[in-house]
Amino acid sequence: MSINTIGHLLRLTTWGESHGPAIGCVIDGCPPGIELDAAHIQRFLDLRRPGTGKNVSPRQEADQVRILSGVYEGRTTGTPIALMIENRDARSADYPADAPYRPGHADYAYDAKYGFRDPRGGGRASARETAMRVAGGAVARLAIPNVDIAARVIEIGGEADAGRWEALLDQARSAGDSLGAVVECIATGVPAGWGAPIYAKLDADLASACMGINAVKAVEIGDGFGAARLRGSENADAMRAGATFDSNHAGGIAGGISTGQPIVVRVAFKPTSSIRIAVPSIDAAGNEVESSTTGRHDPCVGIRGAPVVEAMVALVLADHKLLHRGQCGH
Amino acid sequence: MSINTIGHLLRLTTWGESHGPAIGCVIDGCPPGIELDAAHIQRFLDLRRPGTGKNVSPRQEADQVRILSGVYEGRTTGTPIALMIENRDARSADYPADAPYRPGHADYAYDAKYGFRDPRGGGRASARETAMRVAGGAVARLAIPNVDIAARVIEIGGEADAGRWEALLDQARSAGDSLGAVVECIATGVPAGWGAPIYAKLDADLASACMGINAVKAVEIGDGFGAARLRGSENADAMRAGATFDSNHAGGIAGGISTGQPIVVRVAFKPTSSIRIAVPSIDAAGNEVESSTTGRHDPCVGIRGAPVVEAMVALVLADHKLLHRGQCGH
Amino acid sequence: MSINTIGHLLRLTTWGESHGPAIGCVIDGCPPGIELDAAHIQRFLDLRRPGTGKNVSPRQEADQVRILSGVYEGRTTGTPIALMIENRDARSADYPADAPYRPGHADYAYDAKYGFRDPRGGGRASARETAMRVAGGAVARLAIPNVDIAARVIEIGGEADAGRWEALLDQARSAGDSLGAVVECIATGVPAGWGAPIYAKLDADLASACMGINAVKAVEIGDGFGAARLRGSENADAMRAGATFDSNHAGGIAGGISTGQPIVVRVAFKPTSSIRIAVPSIDAAGNEVESSTTGRHDPCVGIRGAPVVEAMVALVLADHKLLHRGQCGH
Amino acid sequence: MSINTIGHLLRLTTWGESHGPAIGCVIDGCPPGIELDAAHIQRFLDLRRPGTGKNVSPRQEADQVRILSGVYEGRTTGTPIALMIENRDARSADYPADAPYRPGHADYAYDAKYGFRDPRGGGRASARETAMRVAGGAVARLAIPNVDIAARVIEIGGEADAGRWEALLDQARSAGDSLGAVVECIATGVPAGWGAPIYAKLDADLASACMGINAVKAVEIGDGFGAARLRGSENADAMRAGATFDSNHAGGIAGGISTGQPIVVRVAFKPTSSIRIAVPSIDAAGNEVESSTTGRHDPCVGIRGAPVVEAMVALVLADHKLLHRGQCGH
Repeated sequence: MSINTIGHLLRLTTWGESHGPAIGCVIDGCPPGIELDAAHIQRFLDLRRPGTGKNVSPRQEADQVRILSGVYEGRTTGTPIALMIENRDARSADYPADAPYRPGHADYAYDAKYGFRDPRGGGRASARETAMRVAGGAVARLAIPNVDIAARVIEIGGEADAGRWEALLDQARSAGDSLGAVVECIATGVPAGWGAPIYAKLDADLASACMGINAVKAVEIGDGFGAARLRGSENADAMRAGATFDSNHAGGIAGGISTGQPIVVRVAFKPTSSIRIAVPSIDAAGNEVESSTTGRHDPCVGIRGAPVVEAMVALVLADHKLLHRGQCGH
Repeated sequence: MSINTIGHLLRLTTWGESHGPAIGCVIDGCPPGIELDAAHIQRFLDLRRPGTGKNVSPRQEADQVRILSGVYEGRTTGTPIALMIENRDARSADYPADAPYRPGHADYAYDAKYGFRDPRGGGRASARETAMRVAGGAVARLAIPNVDIAARVIEIGGEADAGRWEALLDQARSAGDSLGAVVECIATGVPAGWGAPIYAKLDADLASACMGINAVKAVEIGDGFGAARLRGSENADAMRAGATFDSNHAGGIAGGISTGQPIVVRVAFKPTSSIRIAVPSIDAAGNEVESSTTGRHDPCVGIRGAPVVEAMVALVLADHKLLHRGQCGH
Repeated sequence: MSINTIGHLLRLTTWGESHGPAIGCVIDGCPPGIELDAAHIQRFLDLRRPGTGKNVSPRQEADQVRILSGVYEGRTTGTPIALMIENRDARSADYPADAPYRPGHADYAYDAKYGFRDPRGGGRASARETAMRVAGGAVARLAIPNVDIAARVIEIGGEADAGRWEALLDQARSAGDSLGAVVECIATGVPAGWGAPIYAKLDADLASACMGINAVKAVEIGDGFGAARLRGSENADAMRAGATFDSNHAGGIAGGISTGQPIVVRVAFKPTSSIRIAVPSIDAAGNEVESSTTGRHDPCVGIRGAPVVEAMVALVLADHKLLHRGQCGH
Repeated sequence: MSINTIGHLLRLTTWGESHGPAIGCVIDGCPPGIELDAAHIQRFLDLRRPGTGKNVSPRQEADQVRILSGVYEGRTTGTPIALMIENRDARSADYPADAPYRPGHADYAYDAKYGFRDPRGGGRASARETAMRVAGGAVARLAIPNVDIAARVIEIGGEADAGRWEALLDQARSAGDSLGAVVECIATGVPAGWGAPIYAKLDADLASACMGINAVKAVEIGDGFGAARLRGSENADAMRAGATFDSNHAGGIAGGISTGQPIVVRVAFKPTSSIRIAVPSIDAAGNEVESSTTGRHDPCVGIRGAPVVEAMVALVLADHKLLHRGQCGH
């Protein structure tokens, strides 16, 4: 099924294809009375925007967002906030309908599911959709003004030393290849008590929100896979008077509920699937053909992934603030 | 908020505390006409049951499941299937109300959220709840008879060589300590086309379902974090005529939709938080006290986690089968 | 599809067949810290219980409810509340598998949907399920302590004069026939501001909740169909200083949101479909047969419907209280 | 809370205010491969459009719909379909911010809920939102090609004789007053088996969908309130070989599931709340003021309500077709 909505009380629904006339979203359930204008959203969109450097796609999109509803005289009304960005620099000729299934992309899976698809620029599966996640996250942040959310790339191509990233990226780009990345996001200021105990656990919702970002293949909370290698006595976060903790192996979540410590989420982005190097593939008719990408793409999607991770974390946290207030009243 | 239901069309709702009179679940949306009896479910419960060896909790629970509704003359009717297991060997005296918050457990977070909690045996946060996940998964499997789902522990205490696990566990247990584990689950027989493109992606739903299991701190699909260290040319799963693939770095999912390859999920379990070694903590009144666990616990929860991971994967896959059939009709 | 859950934040899931071992429900999302014991729920169940008079089914069911989870030391914990009632006086011999489809019942529709069904006592479609609605409503009331909800029968067999009902019922019963009824429910104490503007309007949710009660065929809010016969100037509820109203044609809801006036809901129950008078029908094999009911039934289901309407109204109002608090914080 | 989405698998989300830059919707979950163009949707929108006669609002809106996503080369892709209509003839000066709360409108309730609101043309509560319901319904119809849905006004101002409506409307309009109406919608071609047995019953979903239309105060299925005045023997729909019925008191639904007979829904629209006749009211500051409407309005909103009822019925039926297929596979 097609499910293009995320969230329980604060819900983001996105729409739009990479090369359609526009992309957009509807943010429903936002608290009323919050100051909001397009410039606030634009600030976050600009962090994700393509065309801004040699390590991100050269596609030129101003990505100017318009607020179409839900804001009156500069404040949210509590009714749905519709946002839209027109697509301007789409070059559909880069994507002929009889092109090979691009390995690592959703092409084959979409055709298997729906029988056909919009092939232009990846259609609905394009990372362009994440612009609307970023826009939604920009609104969500305003509902949790005491929470600070910051994501950064901590690893590119397996290398944690940022001083070496430039050279790695140059090399990969010139080889027509691409690199993966790891992004870490830390949210501070989340009070103890947000979350749910069993199936919409705060960590489960964060995992879903982040795993659903294009190119993400893994999510961990706190020490994550590292915790599986610790002993219980090493992994224990001792508590002290005043509900402080000696450590944060748990990443700020216990039993699906926030503990008041920083929320720590780490996300693995695979290397960009669109590469100039040819890979064996098939076309929709089943013929064996080579696939190589001539369109405009990021050599490392993880770089532009950081603001998207921030946005998803913001959406989940704001949603859980409202959920908590709904049930528990504070 | 309290959210104790998982799934879109096939939905599992669980209830019950570790030391209450019983635990149970309701499985709603199951297709009609499927042969089902308690013995089928019991077989999976027995794999997860405590009291079966020195490396799992010695709590003696027969865990005899009863089917209370939704089955008539041995077949599912399409109406809700209610299951119940009575709790028998609960020793609530092990859990005084003024006990310290146990580090790594949900004790403090629950109190922060709800103001108070049922402290007996972890109450609602007990891993005992996972019995009902296993029961739900046993039913879900029947809705996807062509899919085979198998999970196994692939790492204990950071050690991948299974021949060394026994010694590691003996040592941890005798030290009053515990170990983490990694579980890998592989589902074969999933056709291409299950999943959803944006927010209930098959991998996002698997991440949510698995991250929500007690003690899980990380989830990866396919190469997961390893993919972040590959080049695009290495990570590409080349395709051949007949829609076969040369490799499965993607773990069977592209763009949130299954590709027909085996679905590969890896899950990190932290070491059991209940350990005999004392850890500084506080009690509900804020006093600094030491916490050490004298109750009955698994030295490595990950061992009993494998059947739970299988169950969650089964629930997600069966749900997506129905979702796909609903929208696309095949 | 089988959907056995109602509510957004406060959710009731019911399970069980008329002649299965038990019926039950799970109430999820209830605020924590509310005093609750089985006696409170029992008080409402006793108002709906069969076997209490000549105008209701003579089936003898003590309907003793047990609380299986979600309550600790007399207070709700915020985790799911599971309730169960064992079935004791089921007489399945009254319902042979080759019985005719009973006109007005769900028999034929269930078979058309699911391929087969549990025929004993109406199976899942039995009005016995409404016991769990009443139980859920009893809990929901506690979440809205300032709201008073009272339903009463205002019409039986088209007769509004209650003094004539006894004779009408005696006559219908002796003729092996049955009568319809209209129930009116008034909720006072609902503050202005609960509800939602477009699709989960307070009136839309009340309509759904009440139309879903067995045997209900119509729902109206305020003047309902009567409003369609008024002029705009007659239907207008003039307002005065202090936000008081001169009238309540609107039934306490405008634009899907409560106005602070009493919420007025009216519900039409069709006459009991189970009658002794023979009606032409068919059996599952398609043979023409006569259907007449020899089991135990109410001559007017609407009489026992009043507490069920109250329960559904309580569930909807409590849910919207939480929803409002979630988004708007007060 | 703000809930602007309706549907389980086929979901309509609407956005937009009467005097904002545009209104729009997102239709998610539509089956792929269905032929769809803007002209098809426009045909239904034109039936609801204002400015087309003396008995509907003279507001001049071309209501030209644009398809922004989800359709490729004339066919639905299975991804979200975004539609948008620009607002052109908004006259916001008709709605000063310090205007009285208009009795019968959502003005006061919105302020009570959200603290403030967009007052221009009713803002989000404007019946203009129903254009998007009609657009959504136009798409939904295509998913149920064998179902025919037709609604018509059967009563205006309490008068069932259509020959007298013109005179009644002329008189009400010249008096600055308005009239209510009853709309009946009949859906034929629905097979037996769509629906759900307990909480998302087909009739409950229809009740919710129709009660949520602006100005609707009552919904009935089949004989509705009339059924409450029949005897069981009169209300019984006898069955004959071939699963035919002698009558359709049930309105095509039994136990929440379709029976294969025509689905019959009747809906009561209150008289237009916007009238020229002055009604006592208050303003946002609490001052007593008279309210009378000088903007452009329909003397009988029910007339334009018929296509909206059709649309809501189409959305519910298409959704239940997919739900049924999901669980039962046919």
